Amino acid sequence: MSDGEPQNIYDDPAFFAGYSTLERFGAGWERAAELGDLLGLLPDVAGRRVLDLGCGAGQLAHYLATHGAAEVVGVDLSERMLALARAQWSHPRVRYQCEALEHVTFPAARFDVVVSSLALHYVEDYRGLIARIAAWLAPGGALVYSTEHPLYTARLPGEGWVRDATGTRWAVDRYADEGPRDESWFVPGVRKVHRTLATLVNGLVEAGLVVERVLEPVPGAAWLQAHPQSHDERRRPVFLLARARKP
Amino acid sequence: MSDGEPQNIYDDPAFFAGYSTLERFGAGWERAAELGDLLGLLPDVAGRRVLDLGCGAGQLAHYLATHGAAEVVGVDLSERMLALARAQWSHPRVRYQCEALEHVTFPAARFDVVVSSLALHYVEDYRGLIARIAAWLAPGGALVYSTEHPLYTARLPGEGWVRDATGTRWAVDRYADEGPRDESWFVPGVRKVHRTLATLVNGLVEAGLVVERVLEPVPGAAWLQAHPQSHDERRRPVFLLARARKP
Repeated sequence: MSDGEPQNIYDDPAFFAGYSTLERFGAGWERAAELGDLLGLLPDVAGRRVLDLGCGAGQLAHYLATHGAAEVVGVDLSERMLALARAQWSHPRVRYQCEALEHVTFPAARFDVVVSSLALHYVEDYRGLIARIAAWLAPGGALVYSTEHPLYTARLPGEGWVRDATGTRWAVDRYADEGPRDESWFVPGVRKVHRTLATLVNGLVEAGLVVERVLEPVPGAAWLQAHPQSHDERRRPVFLLARARKP
Repeated sequence: MSDGEPQNIYDDPAFFAGYSTLERFGAGWERAAELGDLLGLLPDVAGRRVLDLGCGAGQLAHYLATHGAAEVVGVDLSERMLALARAQWSHPRVRYQCEALEHVTFPAARFDVVVSSLALHYVEDYRGLIARIAAWLAPGGALVYSTEHPLYTARLPGEGWVRDATGTRWAVDRYADEGPRDESWFVPGVRKVHRTLATLVNGLVEAGLVVERVLEPVPGAAWLQAHPQSHDERRRPVFLLARARKP
């Protein structure tokens, strides 16, 4: 798939069965390695109107509402994830909306905060989406997102960690060639979009946003002690997080 | 060497002998792969006061003066490079100054443009240097730099391109561990400092600068036709270029 059509892999039963085994699924979402960094980038949401793009099962949307957000709109393409959200992570100030990030629209200046956790790497037209988000933000509003890191997505099919006689190495290739790269993740053919760092940063700037912070979190000592199998996660970043402000 | 002392590898006769064989040395500097992108990031220098940090043999400083800069100060630690600069790239509006980037000082708001071509990766204290540069810039002034890309410097000694049964791969490791990594480049023990992308971007923001553009140039078709041995240069970026503005 590379026709720009939204991908709805989370409604694939086999994918969903696999994904739901992840620690970050359901109540375990608070133990996701990069969550503390994402929350740390968020401005105080008390009294703010928040949009959560790619809200999945709604844990973050619920968290933001319980931390004082005046209103949270959670958007996701997956009916399966939204069914979970409505059943398990509902809140009087959260509204879940089933729509593709590629198609959803809002009035100008509709939100004070837009957050997106690990959803942008499914979207082909990053520049277009960021420009639309910038329009939805009120002046002074902030966009905070996490996405898969360009160094993580710049791998060839079946590669990433490559073993040779001396051990494993993280192999990067075709970094400059942006676009969808299918991978096997519970099921074959999960499409993620590789983008360069320059595209990520310049897309924010071109949308009129001011880049305030970029993070590339890797596990610290405490997390590694609880996840000893994850030692390689310090060797290359998986996530890139950013905060940008609308002037 | 990792004591923070400036490294003066360009005054090492064996290194210098090797470096002077590069096409980018001397008159060939205009054919350096990333030069067009660097020049493209520069604001119009006509009538401006420009600082060139790590000016080397002075080709860029001379170029900026011939393109109308009111004044160019070129700073470099290498007497050998500056001797070349004074002999071959002198200009009435260029002054060469022998000093380490780590130590040089200027009054506040002394320059309109600060440019640095492939010198920052020799400097350990990036944040400190960027903060000093920000102070030297007049309001509205711009910093434009090129440096070795985090993905390029995140290699282990003797690695980078690694060959296995299926071909070569670019191997990244210990990305999150910032600091000097020695490499063999004409001579052993050339120290370059690996930094993450987050450090590069956040250092600009923390110094009060506004990030305007990031580039990760790779060779285009024309350049590759003239340098057929360089096809791998599209597979991973070597350079990261940035422009930031002082508000």
